[in-house]
Amino acid sequence: MGDAAGRMREILEELYPLCRSITGDGVRATLERLADRLPAAMERSEVPSGTQVFDWTVNDEWQAREAWIARPDGRRVVDFADHTLHLVNYSTPFRGRLTRQQLLPHLHTLPDQPDLIPYRTTYYHRDWGFCLSHRQLAELGDGPFEVCVDTGLAPGHLSYGEVVLPGETTDEVLLSAHVCHPSLANDNLSGIAVASEVMRALAARDHRRYTYRLILAPGTIGSLTWLSRNADAVRRVRHGLVLTGLGGGGPLVYKRTRHGARPIDRAAAHVVRRRGGEQRDYSPYGYDERQYNALGFDLAVGRLSRTPHGEYPEYHTSADDLDFVTDDQLVESLDAVLGILDVLEHDAAYTNLSPCGEPQLGSRGLYPTMGGTAATEAVMAMLWTLAYSDGSTTLLQIAERADLPFEALHRAARDLCDAGLLGR
Amino acid sequence: MGDAAGRMREILEELYPLCRSITGDGVRATLERLADRLPAAMERSEVPSGTQVFDWTVNDEWQAREAWIARPDGRRVVDFADHTLHLVNYSTPFRGRLTRQQLLPHLHTLPDQPDLIPYRTTYYHRDWGFCLSHRQLAELGDGPFEVCVDTGLAPGHLSYGEVVLPGETTDEVLLSAHVCHPSLANDNLSGIAVASEVMRALAARDHRRYTYRLILAPGTIGSLTWLSRNADAVRRVRHGLVLTGLGGGGPLVYKRTRHGARPIDRAAAHVVRRRGGEQRDYSPYGYDERQYNALGFDLAVGRLSRTPHGEYPEYHTSADDLDFVTDDQLVESLDAVLGILDVLEHDAAYTNLSPCGEPQLGSRGLYPTMGGTAATEAVMAMLWTLAYSDGSTTLLQIAERADLPFEALHRAARDLCDAGLLGR
Amino acid sequence: MGDAAGRMREILEELYPLCRSITGDGVRATLERLADRLPAAMERSEVPSGTQVFDWTVNDEWQAREAWIARPDGRRVVDFADHTLHLVNYSTPFRGRLTRQQLLPHLHTLPDQPDLIPYRTTYYHRDWGFCLSHRQLAELGDGPFEVCVDTGLAPGHLSYGEVVLPGETTDEVLLSAHVCHPSLANDNLSGIAVASEVMRALAARDHRRYTYRLILAPGTIGSLTWLSRNADAVRRVRHGLVLTGLGGGGPLVYKRTRHGARPIDRAAAHVVRRRGGEQRDYSPYGYDERQYNALGFDLAVGRLSRTPHGEYPEYHTSADDLDFVTDDQLVESLDAVLGILDVLEHDAAYTNLSPCGEPQLGSRGLYPTMGGTAATEAVMAMLWTLAYSDGSTTLLQIAERADLPFEALHRAARDLCDAGLLGR
Repeated sequence: MGDAAGRMREILEELYPLCRSITGDGVRATLERLADRLPAAMERSEVPSGTQVFDWTVNDEWQAREAWIARPDGRRVVDFADHTLHLVNYSTPFRGRLTRQQLLPHLHTLPDQPDLIPYRTTYYHRDWGFCLSHRQLAELGDGPFEVCVDTGLAPGHLSYGEVVLPGETTDEVLLSAHVCHPSLANDNLSGIAVASEVMRALAARDHRRYTYRLILAPGTIGSLTWLSRNADAVRRVRHGLVLTGLGGGGPLVYKRTRHGARPIDRAAAHVVRRRGGEQRDYSPYGYDERQYNALGFDLAVGRLSRTPHGEYPEYHTSADDLDFVTDDQLVESLDAVLGILDVLEHDAAYTNLSPCGEPQLGSRGLYPTMGGTAATEAVMAMLWTLAYSDGSTTLLQIAERADLPFEALHRAARDLCDAGLLGR
Repeated sequence: MGDAAGRMREILEELYPLCRSITGDGVRATLERLADRLPAAMERSEVPSGTQVFDWTVNDEWQAREAWIARPDGRRVVDFADHTLHLVNYSTPFRGRLTRQQLLPHLHTLPDQPDLIPYRTTYYHRDWGFCLSHRQLAELGDGPFEVCVDTGLAPGHLSYGEVVLPGETTDEVLLSAHVCHPSLANDNLSGIAVASEVMRALAARDHRRYTYRLILAPGTIGSLTWLSRNADAVRRVRHGLVLTGLGGGGPLVYKRTRHGARPIDRAAAHVVRRRGGEQRDYSPYGYDERQYNALGFDLAVGRLSRTPHGEYPEYHTSADDLDFVTDDQLVESLDAVLGILDVLEHDAAYTNLSPCGEPQLGSRGLYPTMGGTAATEAVMAMLWTLAYSDGSTTLLQIAERADLPFEALHRAARDLCDAGLLGR
Repeated sequence: MGDAAGRMREILEELYPLCRSITGDGVRATLERLADRLPAAMERSEVPSGTQVFDWTVNDEWQAREAWIARPDGRRVVDFADHTLHLVNYSTPFRGRLTRQQLLPHLHTLPDQPDLIPYRTTYYHRDWGFCLSHRQLAELGDGPFEVCVDTGLAPGHLSYGEVVLPGETTDEVLLSAHVCHPSLANDNLSGIAVASEVMRALAARDHRRYTYRLILAPGTIGSLTWLSRNADAVRRVRHGLVLTGLGGGGPLVYKRTRHGARPIDRAAAHVVRRRGGEQRDYSPYGYDERQYNALGFDLAVGRLSRTPHGEYPEYHTSADDLDFVTDDQLVESLDAVLGILDVLEHDAAYTNLSPCGEPQLGSRGLYPTMGGTAATEAVMAMLWTLAYSDGSTTLLQIAERADLPFEALHRAARDLCDAGLLGR
């Protein structure tokens, strides 16, 4: 996994400086650089501004070129060139001289975290503004101030990308990571980086039961746009995960589907619980799981994060930087996603072919020879598999009863099939 | 609610001195005075002694005129005129001179609460007796004692009253409070007072989905008599609450129906839990809920109390007086009953009319304009309503999932209906 | 129960010295002596070595005559004559002089419990060995050692016994105790002794709803052999208990059937919980419950133990001796088994014949005459029985709701039937 950690770190470092938004060149540049790192061709879509997407309309495209506030002596005291968070995302253009009183309504700070720059957007309300640390505000001076917001907001396109790895069946597993946040590392460069490595690991396998699709799109309007243009693929989605916030904060947190007891929920429950993580019920607040789970689609898409949005102090501030995301957490998140997908790939119901009493495992070399000592995990996994393989109870259900890892049951099933004691 | 508190206090003060029992003039006087305070006509019933009521027979009517124990010097040491609890309820007449030894078997005290007079009845076993404080007993003297129990026990009638507020449907909500206990304020003048105010509040509404019926009857034999004479109304009862012990003791306690998962149970669970109250499973011991829930009727009638009978030291003693019942507790109980009835009135399943993804609340003025900040309860209630309104999930079920008050979901549904995003 | 304790103690003392195994004269002697103590004829079976039993084959019969290790000076430092655990069970014959190095691989000790002799078997792997305390090993000396393992392993028979007490129906309750362990008191002379007393108590009854069958067989191969030869009886088994480890360790522990919610599980849950015991889910590791519950038979057989195998330090060591097993624990285990069987015998659904309100218990002498006081357990049991006897809810279900002992409900049902208030 050393390589995986290195590759994920490269993605973070390369993409962190870009000013992403729900449209514009920052998203395009992000998709381009990711295309080079993904194990299959990325299909990119450009959807014109004004396109109707269910209840929404694709926004005008936004470009941010330059934005600053300067004192009377010309010194720039807040500058987008220093940090993409300084400019309220989707700010409309403005140029002029303002008094302190006139400027203040356009400034956003976090008084309780005086060193941090907040992240703010104004996608659906035409306005402009700056975000700065509360300490910067305190030292701003009396003005008047020269203000420059050199942005463009004009008909253009919304951009998103997708990568598909075909499997044995056309049933799909959907992975989704939002690409609209600017210089925030955990939210969501971490999700993008983990998703890339997941696709790489899946691509390296000889055999995939499912077809895997990764969607890299701006939040809300991006996933809705994909949903509106891919009715056939939507019908094929069997399971899915939104990947976000996977590199910083506390333990793994799985957010269930709206339904709450889909196969993805059971698979994730198993993996996350065994790693000391948490599970939460669905709520209609969060990331793109809200769109995938909406009643009109009802897709079985859960969300994997670490400490969720709004629950860690670095959330949506300049403290969500490259240091906040650690390699260990990225790698553990990657392992967890692959563990969940392994359950989806390999869970099945088997039938015990020697059901009249316990078969003699010893004579098949599957049991320790000296009686009176404790059984190993491998032996216990075989005994559990034989005890419950009635043709309808699945390995995951047995793993949960047995409190054993799914992998152990999967290995036991393979060994017992090889010994002729178990069948499908 | 200031008026409500005042009106409930007036009821308590007016009714406290009366000597109620399961029959007799004390009950009649109680019903008469309540008739003046209720928002619709009270229908009063007088059922002759000896009438067969299922497995029971209506008792002879009991009147208590005078009852005392006097020392040799003529001083009355226990006197019914001082407190209605001094006389065992339903005592048969007696007049005579008794030694201390002869008298003692007829005296009831609470050695562990030496200042309090207990409450005792002998409805179905002909006997007489006095209740007194243990301290009074200690100072009783050696006797002999002159004893007077001037009561009447002769064919007459059992009295009960009922008040009906018609609604849009003939489906009924039954409210029931027992009126047979003498000078005990919490048990059950509190229930009577809260029930009166509930009826007043319901009467003031423009619209009632249900017809509401309040039954004011003596315990057990009274409710059974009503059940035996109102087979048609019994069939129309959809939900019900026995109201008792609502002004003293600790937090709200809801006792479930025998079935345990009726709509009234779910409505009460929601309201009581959010107020820090408790829920208990049904048990066949308590007040008239035992009769309404009996297998032959199986009505969905729960019980709302504060700390239940037998669990507070003042229970069935002279300490259950006007000071034990507080206005704050009466008013909170009233609010809780109305909250439960509001759920029954307004709970319904809606259908999301814009189910393909989250609709754009912002463009309809239903969402804050500046992105990146936390959602309000009103926004969250709308998101939850949209997420789960599939035509079969009800607002109460959504409120429970969302951990939001039912009222918030009800308001959200109204706003979303107004915006064309939700329908029935 | 004084007699029961004495009889169980006699069984323990008589059987403890015998060297039992899965075949051989030790098992035969054990069955012979038990036959004299059981209340009905024991049917004994002798099944030839080599008989195919599902996936297994009946072993050659094993006899142990003499086994020792002697120092160069002829002194025997480990001797089977001192303790049956010294010889690895099913050791093949050996005679020879060995160096310490050659001998060591054949010796088994417990370094963490240096005073105890472990119990080891080698049923399905031809080998020989000795078990000794770690302290004995430390003092063994340098050798060379004269080693004698005078055992026989040759075609013969596997022996088991069964006792049947016929009941009103041919539906069977199966009791099973393994008889293959040598000088270990709790595992399983305790189970054998309790099973004997259970049969004696059942035999003394006028009436048994079920036919009871006690199987005394060697573990695994013994129960499998019985299963393979009694297909008709297997079909008649409705409930069952494996009895083992019932005289030492901590509280009662009931292990559920594989299914987990059979009548035996509910009956045992009720009895064991009320005695402060524990319940565990099924696991495919343990005693003969694994065979009875195997998918091909799927019998509703739970297991009653005290602290289970492997969880007490005396387990499978010489410390599991006659002192480890106490009379109090044996007697409590006996009571619990009989309590469970009482539930199976007497649980039934009754119908309230006076369902319209609570019937007047007082007029039938079933209720205290003075109102206002608390109800007794007997009264509460009647009220609960009347409240829920709808023709389908059983007494055990009511006992669980009421949190009352099953016996109280059973007595209440009898009294209410006598009063004409309840019927089947």
